[in-house]
Amino acid sequence: MVQQSRTTTADVTLRQVDAQWRAANYLTVGQLYLRENPLLTDALTLDHIKPRPLGHWGTAPGLNFIYSHVNRAIIAHDLDALCVVGPGHGGAALCANSWLDGTYSASHPEVPQNSAGMRELFRQFSTPEGVPSHTGPHIPGSIHEGGELGYSLAHAYGAVMDNPGLVAVCIVGDGEAETGPLAASWHANKFVNPDTDGTVLPILHLNGYKLDNPTVLSRIPTDQLGSLLRGYGYVPLFVFAGGCEVFVAHERMTLALDRAVDLIREGRQPVIVFESPKGWTGPRIVEGLPVEGTWRSHQLPYKTIDDRHLEKLQTWLLSYQPGALFDADGKPAAHVQALIPRGDARMSANRHTNGGAILQRLDLAEPAQYAVDVPQAAPGTADAAPTTVLGHYLADVFDRNAQARNFRLFGPDETTSNRLTAVYRATGKRWNGRLELTDANLDRDGRVMEILSEHLCQGWLEGYLLTGRHGMLSCYEAFAHLVDSMVDQHAKWLKTAAQAPGRLPIASLNQLITSHVWRQDHNGFSHQDPGYLDHITNIGADVAAIYLPPDTNTLLHVARECLSSTGKINVIVAGKHDSPVWFDATSAAEHCERGAGIIDWTSTPSAVDRDDESSPDIVLGCAGDVPTTETIAAAHLLQHYLPQLRTRVVNVVDLLRLQSPSQYRYAISDAQYEGLFPPTCPTLFAFHGYPALIHRLTYRRPGHEHLHVRGFTDRGSTTTPFDMLVRNGIDRYQLVIDAIDLLPDHAAQAAALRQKMVDAHTRHKQWIRDHGTDMPSVQHWYSDPEEALDDHGIPGR
Amino acid sequence: MVQQSRTTTADVTLRQVDAQWRAANYLTVGQLYLRENPLLTDALTLDHIKPRPLGHWGTAPGLNFIYSHVNRAIIAHDLDALCVVGPGHGGAALCANSWLDGTYSASHPEVPQNSAGMRELFRQFSTPEGVPSHTGPHIPGSIHEGGELGYSLAHAYGAVMDNPGLVAVCIVGDGEAETGPLAASWHANKFVNPDTDGTVLPILHLNGYKLDNPTVLSRIPTDQLGSLLRGYGYVPLFVFAGGCEVFVAHERMTLALDRAVDLIREGRQPVIVFESPKGWTGPRIVEGLPVEGTWRSHQLPYKTIDDRHLEKLQTWLLSYQPGALFDADGKPAAHVQALIPRGDARMSANRHTNGGAILQRLDLAEPAQYAVDVPQAAPGTADAAPTTVLGHYLADVFDRNAQARNFRLFGPDETTSNRLTAVYRATGKRWNGRLELTDANLDRDGRVMEILSEHLCQGWLEGYLLTGRHGMLSCYEAFAHLVDSMVDQHAKWLKTAAQAPGRLPIASLNQLITSHVWRQDHNGFSHQDPGYLDHITNIGADVAAIYLPPDTNTLLHVARECLSSTGKINVIVAGKHDSPVWFDATSAAEHCERGAGIIDWTSTPSAVDRDDESSPDIVLGCAGDVPTTETIAAAHLLQHYLPQLRTRVVNVVDLLRLQSPSQYRYAISDAQYEGLFPPTCPTLFAFHGYPALIHRLTYRRPGHEHLHVRGFTDRGSTTTPFDMLVRNGIDRYQLVIDAIDLLPDHAAQAAALRQKMVDAHTRHKQWIRDHGTDMPSVQHWYSDPEEALDDHGIPGR
Repeated sequence: MVQQSRTTTADVTLRQVDAQWRAANYLTVGQLYLRENPLLTDALTLDHIKPRPLGHWGTAPGLNFIYSHVNRAIIAHDLDALCVVGPGHGGAALCANSWLDGTYSASHPEVPQNSAGMRELFRQFSTPEGVPSHTGPHIPGSIHEGGELGYSLAHAYGAVMDNPGLVAVCIVGDGEAETGPLAASWHANKFVNPDTDGTVLPILHLNGYKLDNPTVLSRIPTDQLGSLLRGYGYVPLFVFAGGCEVFVAHERMTLALDRAVDLIREGRQPVIVFESPKGWTGPRIVEGLPVEGTWRSHQLPYKTIDDRHLEKLQTWLLSYQPGALFDADGKPAAHVQALIPRGDARMSANRHTNGGAILQRLDLAEPAQYAVDVPQAAPGTADAAPTTVLGHYLADVFDRNAQARNFRLFGPDETTSNRLTAVYRATGKRWNGRLELTDANLDRDGRVMEILSEHLCQGWLEGYLLTGRHGMLSCYEAFAHLVDSMVDQHAKWLKTAAQAPGRLPIASLNQLITSHVWRQDHNGFSHQDPGYLDHITNIGADVAAIYLPPDTNTLLHVARECLSSTGKINVIVAGKHDSPVWFDATSAAEHCERGAGIIDWTSTPSAVDRDDESSPDIVLGCAGDVPTTETIAAAHLLQHYLPQLRTRVVNVVDLLRLQSPSQYRYAISDAQYEGLFPPTCPTLFAFHGYPALIHRLTYRRPGHEHLHVRGFTDRGSTTTPFDMLVRNGIDRYQLVIDAIDLLPDHAAQAAALRQKMVDAHTRHKQWIRDHGTDMPSVQHWYSDPEEALDDHGIPGR
Repeated sequence: MVQQSRTTTADVTLRQVDAQWRAANYLTVGQLYLRENPLLTDALTLDHIKPRPLGHWGTAPGLNFIYSHVNRAIIAHDLDALCVVGPGHGGAALCANSWLDGTYSASHPEVPQNSAGMRELFRQFSTPEGVPSHTGPHIPGSIHEGGELGYSLAHAYGAVMDNPGLVAVCIVGDGEAETGPLAASWHANKFVNPDTDGTVLPILHLNGYKLDNPTVLSRIPTDQLGSLLRGYGYVPLFVFAGGCEVFVAHERMTLALDRAVDLIREGRQPVIVFESPKGWTGPRIVEGLPVEGTWRSHQLPYKTIDDRHLEKLQTWLLSYQPGALFDADGKPAAHVQALIPRGDARMSANRHTNGGAILQRLDLAEPAQYAVDVPQAAPGTADAAPTTVLGHYLADVFDRNAQARNFRLFGPDETTSNRLTAVYRATGKRWNGRLELTDANLDRDGRVMEILSEHLCQGWLEGYLLTGRHGMLSCYEAFAHLVDSMVDQHAKWLKTAAQAPGRLPIASLNQLITSHVWRQDHNGFSHQDPGYLDHITNIGADVAAIYLPPDTNTLLHVARECLSSTGKINVIVAGKHDSPVWFDATSAAEHCERGAGIIDWTSTPSAVDRDDESSPDIVLGCAGDVPTTETIAAAHLLQHYLPQLRTRVVNVVDLLRLQSPSQYRYAISDAQYEGLFPPTCPTLFAFHGYPALIHRLTYRRPGHEHLHVRGFTDRGSTTTPFDMLVRNGIDRYQLVIDAIDLLPDHAAQAAALRQKMVDAHTRHKQWIRDHGTDMPSVQHWYSDPEEALDDHGIPGR
């Protein structure tokens, strides 16, 4: 515990910190209420008040207090610091502080550092076409959107990775601290290394209340809170700022920050617990009810300003002594500015916080160097495990960028399960805890980040990207839903940042979705859910992309493109099991660039002419590695038994380009679309995910009424890989049956083939009942359909 | 710390516990590997081995150890206990234990408690058409699916609420403990009250490893772990079972459990830290690499069994001395059964774990008692805030069921913000922490559960429902995504439980989605996301329902239906601001029962005939409260200015019934659908959420090509409520414009109206720029369009 001095004699430093704090508080209250008369040069009238005051006061004075003190500490200790502000609605406080230090005016010239600018600062806040009430990309120095709570500490830890010397001050709200992601984030300290990473300095903003309730951490005994924080591995420093003279609070905070810096320089991990009244310095009582120090100060102490409150609001504003804080032109006075750092030392100008501006492109190998060799004459004759090969490519990414130290791989304890193990020849798994003799691949300087928390992995990656680096996250498909909301908020950040002055695009957030639905036959129903793609689709193609590379070589191409892109959320779906390689390196690149294309060699030769609308009798569409294999197997069966049928196979890689060009400017043009899927021709589409997603994407396309989609229909549990396909009606036999049923004329030959397929299903069921595994033939794609059928014992050779 | 006895002299009790443990271990290994020869009566051959061994060993011996010891404690202390098993893949262990105690055979007669049953127990595990490798509804006594990690402790706390005397033993995996939801759940102990609730006894299963890595909690110093758990408010009891003689471990665990029971009876909250080697009693070394005590034991120590491993597997199995554990017929020996509780005292037969069997229906008032009075001649002339009125109804639910104590309301610190405050006249917010004078509505026995964690609220509610009670969760719409994955897993539980022998339907999980996208104009972009409905749609209408009541009275009806339903996930979307009431209580009930219907009074009289396909010129469809208001406003403008136009308004309440009957058996029939939306007539549909969802639901409906949907298109941030609508193209003026544009002939009259609407948009933009608020007219729905227009100053009266 920090020694609590009883002095109330404030020295010059504390008076300067106090002036800074009061100035920020004044600017905060002004943003909440005023549209005119920013310096209170006239007596306040209702005309000066916003028509619809909006915003949050409660957290702001504490944030301003901390910010002012950290400013002092930066100067005193020559710190390289940035600030992550967890408390959701702290936007006004951060606007105030960045206006005070000049960065806000620099990036928003329409809000200069004078009285006209102060007026504009007040007017824009929480008004139409203005700025929102949360922190966000519009605030210089922010790397964190304050709307959804829980991710501040994870973002801060992501920011300090590979930034030795950097201090990320992370203000954690005591409300936010109740969320799962934040509760898990405290343990992130086991994954940073003081030699090669910076330090996170968490400041628990213990103001006692969230929106409408006391907070858990504010109502447990202090020794219990200390025990908890020590249990997380921190050295807690308590600052009790409530119930004491304000200069005592200043002195305590000064001592605590100085001690924290000492501890950081000793390689230890301090946490400051800053206890202060919610709504500190605001109205104590409003309409007979206590406000300061209660949850009632969360939003506006005075919900609206009428005659009754006008004078009280004026008194409140004047309590900060604005005349002593700003000159006649509204410029902050010298003593207010005295302890605000200059230039890049300002937290709101910290170079790491505008990641796009310091982004260094990754050095990336040509995918061809890692491509699986496929004889162009015999596609599908080589097998490879897509993510295994990608692991080799990623190892190369680590090697090439070892000096830049700007790439990391994140995963919830699944990097090995996802078969990316080749990366361990280039780097290890980061672990700064106790090591044991039996450990493997753990490394105090490893660049693979694993903890069993999708939230933490995602939050770390976001923080790492926002500060100008690159990364990829691999994740079981079903559990990607855990970060639905996080990825949404990151998308919102990207969309807003694209409009924010001075922000440059950061590296894309790349998610490798693997261990996917079609190969969770051993884990069963709980692990089977491809719905993450639907969620990503809602984000919109301006920011999100979904790639379904059909094989290993297309995966390599897609991965390279994603790793070199900026400003996007790229979701790549790929399997981890051996599967056929259809494209050599060159054709893989061409296919991916087009986004979708006819697979000529597996289509009937007469059905590949894009300009002849009547050329195919049926199109077999597919997206996803497993559906592509089944589709190609089905096409082969059709061609072998119904050689007169003109069958075309179309594979889609870049899913959102299926949308109409009216919805997405990089969509496949309607002409190109019709060249692949002729509007009058039936299309049977085998899709990796829920079938409805394909309908949703294509409903504006010509011929949509002839599109029939197969995909995951929520069937299956613990079974065999092929049985998962059979249960969901997307296996090769069912595709052949469905294709035949879609054709106008059922020739006798077709009827016979149809029966063969029905028999094959029967035989499959019996086989897995007898053997517990799949028939050998369906474990592969066969170039010789007779051989395949023979293996099943289906009559009719 | 528990006193560590040095004795190795096992008394009878410990020998019986040990026998039980060995029997469970034997049965676990059998499930992983064997398909024949269950009792090892013959020498093991490859024919006895499963063709595809699957499953997880690592966690099982620890689970079995704990289970056997808790069994002893139940008998010794006459406990009413159930068991929640967090470690994901513990299914085999739980199957083993419930087979040993007889409950498995009772609910699965095909798996009797003899050698034939043991053979079947082994064969079914992780095989096609068998049982999955996780705990789940198929295991008697389970209330927790082990597939997705992180929810065990929240489920356990939900289970003990209102069950005084019940002990929920919750085995928390040290991998699972790294997840956010689990990390937050430790603090749930502040929300249970020893007088009216039961107790959760967490047992941290510290076996050191997760799938592929050491766990964080196993590698921090023991004193730090103790400090952490004390910080959470528990009394930690450490049991070190590794590295000591096994009977020492038994004795330590016995002492710890006895001490835990004492502490619970003193009203304190113990936690047991059980440290043991992962894969304990399994192979130490396989192919030269250490397995027992490392992550390599997570799944199968021997991945496959060939000649090399056959003998080792046999040795492993025989190490448990099966001959002494089971009689010749496979029945567990007397000393194995000695310390297994009987009857309902068995954890797998605990009555609370089959919630449907003890479910007591809620006593629910008729919605009419709380309905807002609407003169049938003047719909829309009364305003009400839907959730405010619902709050009164819910208060009544609390009152009527006060004795049964079987209803709770859950919310992440938002019950007041969501305007459900009327409930506080019936009950308070549960708070067992320190109370302060300024606190309001906090109550040590309150039935409103608030913590700032959607995960925890959802997990508590699930646990509460699974143990046979009722509840509702209210949540900001945008942040419902936080529990996407949880609700998915609950849906999977419901689907699987419906097939599980002996399980009866539990009460539905009711989610009130409010503070929705259209009124987050003050919180801005981060709070605007209606995509949760898309996620719920993927779950499927067999288990999920989405209700969009257009007003307060329909909300009341829907809420009553949801609260009295079972086996579903009901998502209700409702606003919290004053809005028009369109339906009186009777017509609200009729409208909701139909799921969708024509709103006669606001349609042109000639356009309401369902049987006359040519009757309307245009259909204005709507779903959601705000879109309905805009649609009715638009319909009025059209009728006033284009009285010759036959306009029909159709409102949809029960969203998933829009799907084709081929997709959902309770869907609106095609004939009914065509009676609402004639296939040749253009429909302009104003939807609460993303427009694509309506297309997705209706793509199989006749006339889909004439359906044009407006909804949220990701535009807007901090602005005014009406401006949110304008920005997303779903406001009344835009609907009129779009309706005119959809009609084949633009009469001069229509062109003039269209221009009026364009002018109204211009005026709106100017108004909010000038005033910062909405024009007074658009803040209401007006029955006199002239008045409305006049207010805007649009020429043309």
